[in-house]
Amino acid sequence: MDFFRFASADIGLIGLAVMGQNLILNMNDNGYTVACFNRTVSKVDHFLENEAKGTKVVGAHSIQEFCAMLKRPRKIVLLVKAGPAVDALIAEIIPYLEKGDIIIDGGNSHFPDSDRRMAELEAKGFLFVGSGVSGGEEGARYGPSLMPGGSKDAWPEIKEIFQAIAAKSDGEPCCDWVGTGGAGHYVKMIHNGIEYGDMQLIAEAYAFMEHGLGMNYDEMSQTLAEWNKGVLDSFLIEITRDVLAFKDTDGKPIVPKILDCAGQKGTGKWTAISALDFGQPVTLIGEAVFARCLSALKNEREKASLKLGGPKPNFEGDRKQFLQDLEQALYASKIVSYTQGYMLLREASKAFNYDLNFASIALMWRGGCIIRSVFLKDITNAYRKNKELDSLLLDDFFAKAITKAQPGWRRVVSQGALWGIAQPATSAALSFFDGYRTAKGSASLIQGLRDYFGAHTFKVMPGQENDVFKDKEDIHVNWTGRGGSVSASTYIA
Amino acid sequence: MDFFRFASADIGLIGLAVMGQNLILNMNDNGYTVACFNRTVSKVDHFLENEAKGTKVVGAHSIQEFCAMLKRPRKIVLLVKAGPAVDALIAEIIPYLEKGDIIIDGGNSHFPDSDRRMAELEAKGFLFVGSGVSGGEEGARYGPSLMPGGSKDAWPEIKEIFQAIAAKSDGEPCCDWVGTGGAGHYVKMIHNGIEYGDMQLIAEAYAFMEHGLGMNYDEMSQTLAEWNKGVLDSFLIEITRDVLAFKDTDGKPIVPKILDCAGQKGTGKWTAISALDFGQPVTLIGEAVFARCLSALKNEREKASLKLGGPKPNFEGDRKQFLQDLEQALYASKIVSYTQGYMLLREASKAFNYDLNFASIALMWRGGCIIRSVFLKDITNAYRKNKELDSLLLDDFFAKAITKAQPGWRRVVSQGALWGIAQPATSAALSFFDGYRTAKGSASLIQGLRDYFGAHTFKVMPGQENDVFKDKEDIHVNWTGRGGSVSASTYIA
Repeated sequence: MDFFRFASADIGLIGLAVMGQNLILNMNDNGYTVACFNRTVSKVDHFLENEAKGTKVVGAHSIQEFCAMLKRPRKIVLLVKAGPAVDALIAEIIPYLEKGDIIIDGGNSHFPDSDRRMAELEAKGFLFVGSGVSGGEEGARYGPSLMPGGSKDAWPEIKEIFQAIAAKSDGEPCCDWVGTGGAGHYVKMIHNGIEYGDMQLIAEAYAFMEHGLGMNYDEMSQTLAEWNKGVLDSFLIEITRDVLAFKDTDGKPIVPKILDCAGQKGTGKWTAISALDFGQPVTLIGEAVFARCLSALKNEREKASLKLGGPKPNFEGDRKQFLQDLEQALYASKIVSYTQGYMLLREASKAFNYDLNFASIALMWRGGCIIRSVFLKDITNAYRKNKELDSLLLDDFFAKAITKAQPGWRRVVSQGALWGIAQPATSAALSFFDGYRTAKGSASLIQGLRDYFGAHTFKVMPGQENDVFKDKEDIHVNWTGRGGSVSASTYIA
Repeated sequence: MDFFRFASADIGLIGLAVMGQNLILNMNDNGYTVACFNRTVSKVDHFLENEAKGTKVVGAHSIQEFCAMLKRPRKIVLLVKAGPAVDALIAEIIPYLEKGDIIIDGGNSHFPDSDRRMAELEAKGFLFVGSGVSGGEEGARYGPSLMPGGSKDAWPEIKEIFQAIAAKSDGEPCCDWVGTGGAGHYVKMIHNGIEYGDMQLIAEAYAFMEHGLGMNYDEMSQTLAEWNKGVLDSFLIEITRDVLAFKDTDGKPIVPKILDCAGQKGTGKWTAISALDFGQPVTLIGEAVFARCLSALKNEREKASLKLGGPKPNFEGDRKQFLQDLEQALYASKIVSYTQGYMLLREASKAFNYDLNFASIALMWRGGCIIRSVFLKDITNAYRKNKELDSLLLDDFFAKAITKAQPGWRRVVSQGALWGIAQPATSAALSFFDGYRTAKGSASLIQGLRDYFGAHTFKVMPGQENDVFKDKEDIHVNWTGRGGSVSASTYIA
């Protein structure tokens, strides 16, 4: 075998589904020679004879051949289904690697797996990169958002290729080093969680327009086109405009022909679980994930629709005014969602020592990826002004923006409740906002109840200290006059 | 050593915090001889000389002595902090056990730990019971709700004691065998999640009365007293009445002196994670957990309160009418919360083969525990009428009840949004209800977007099938006219 004469490829990629094919063509366009492989080998030949015809892309029919085609240190991108398939593939590749070679997992892996894989591969002398890749088909083909993290020594080796193929925003590449271990996949997970939230908010606005304001699909599409010129200017608003306008061959809108059960790949769920683990109130993404779960219960919803009636919206006001309110509701809710997402990034950065650069994360998301928007520029600005910003809502720009959007937002949530139009994410955002700006909240009562029935104790509200209620102490009140003086804080044998 | 002459105790308990002490006194009142032990041995003597003075309770100063005091098969209740402490204690006890002895974990253990412990102990010839215990100090003392699961052979041995000390409801004990492995702790976890939800709903009504309707603490307490005579009649409403009325020595209400940061022991979080794992939209408990997380961010809330303004409620209507609406809002939200909790029980029963008896679970919760209420009787009735009921909302009684409560519920959520009073759980419940009763939801748009940017494919809405949109097939539309025909469903190497 004289494989080594083929060792001419700058980078290799395994996994020829749509994302993999498009990333390869993108790298090829940028002047890199790419080797490719796929478990079902016929796909390699099909790709070379069709989509990759006329390019410099080279194909392999075995992993051994594939590895032999790559310049040292080898850079191998895996784009396969997240989970055990990644570990299995890494195990197959390892026998053909040399020290310093780099394995790059570009799938939607769960961040703890990337933490583990980096440790395992570094122990064997290899380098590992877990990279978030966002942008779908189009992004992969013409410039994705790339969020690489892992072995820091790998970054100088892949930086040029990654930044070359990434999307650009105001001339800056939407790709930078994120941090160690699973940091890249963590940030990608938050990106996806936010994407769930953004889409749910849009879906709620759609339901409001259709069922509340009685609009048809062309009118809704035109509204989205208007919104795309303002503060909501973003990829998702843009494609919603197009999807709503898209007609089937019979001339009718295609959206009502699509089954109303939303699929999930798991990253939204991971985000919600991470929020619960860190004790951060990421309510909007939580509601977005649960809304997809509810959508999946089609049979139950059909039965319930026959049994549980509700109000019939009968809109007679100024539709234009209401659409402005709706735009403000979407914008304000979006500010809350990103605020919550960044609360989670802040906690993860501390807990996992990722040392995340919050401004640079917003920059990575500004182009190429699904959540790209002009909005993200304002986030980059906020964190460039103040690296230690506690919360986006405490930034002057966003505080002003949400205050301005507030009246319309409240009218939409209020009207939705009266009309019977579900708005789980929009109303969760408003509840969060109202809870967040409340210095003294209703949890005092909850603590009183917990101490009453379970002797869980409480602490004193600042300014209310006295001889019995002392600062920082665990206080237990004998509410009933019965029971002992033993508190549950000693509930340890 | 002549320990064996002491082998006269019917049951033993380790862990003398408030719950342990009260359970012991409860068993003693019911005629059982109880042996006790505690790691800090001085507590044993203190307990015998004080709370247990004049009882038949016997104390041990070592685990060996403790085990020697117990009749065979030994029944040993552990009431220690959930987690590694339970495993450590079991390991210490094992050397003094004989085959057939029963270890009963009455702490708030996570159900997978109970699954594991049952397997480990059965492999060694012992029996294991993981039992939910609810009712706090008072419940433990005068009749708790007990939810035992684990080794089925243990049930005949402990049934008499357990049902004797448990609360009674309409003459039936609030204790029955739940199922195998961690079933008891799973059901207790759901109980606690529902408890989080119930308390959050009450806290939201409190905020509404205080900030929206401008009521003082005595007026609020009187309102709760009224509610406790109607559909909301329950332990938590009853003690809220008392907690709101409770005055400090200066004659002022005590609740505003309590720090507004709610604590968590983790069971609410576990419930939310289980909901995410099973893909069940348990939104109300999720929001209740997140509301506690938000309450903990005291510093941020104080900063935000200075930066983020909102509307000032200025109530001038009929307070009595509004309080009726508020009662209906709480009732309807509660129906949703229990519906969601039972959705989770249904999935767990299937996935873990717990074979849960839904009517009997509601019966166990009807007395003794924190969420006890007349409401649970209606749930028992619903599942006794139809064991295979898909959902509480599809039961005639609850469908009618929520339909009747609907107008007031909508007015409260609507007004709360306009007034700036956070209602995360009440509004999440309404959004769930409106989503649940929608046969064709807005997820069609989400599926269209996902197919647009990620080639994720979709299925056709029933009734919309045609030559291209075929029933049950994965459909991909070439939305842009660019890109390939490869769909993401092949995103596997």
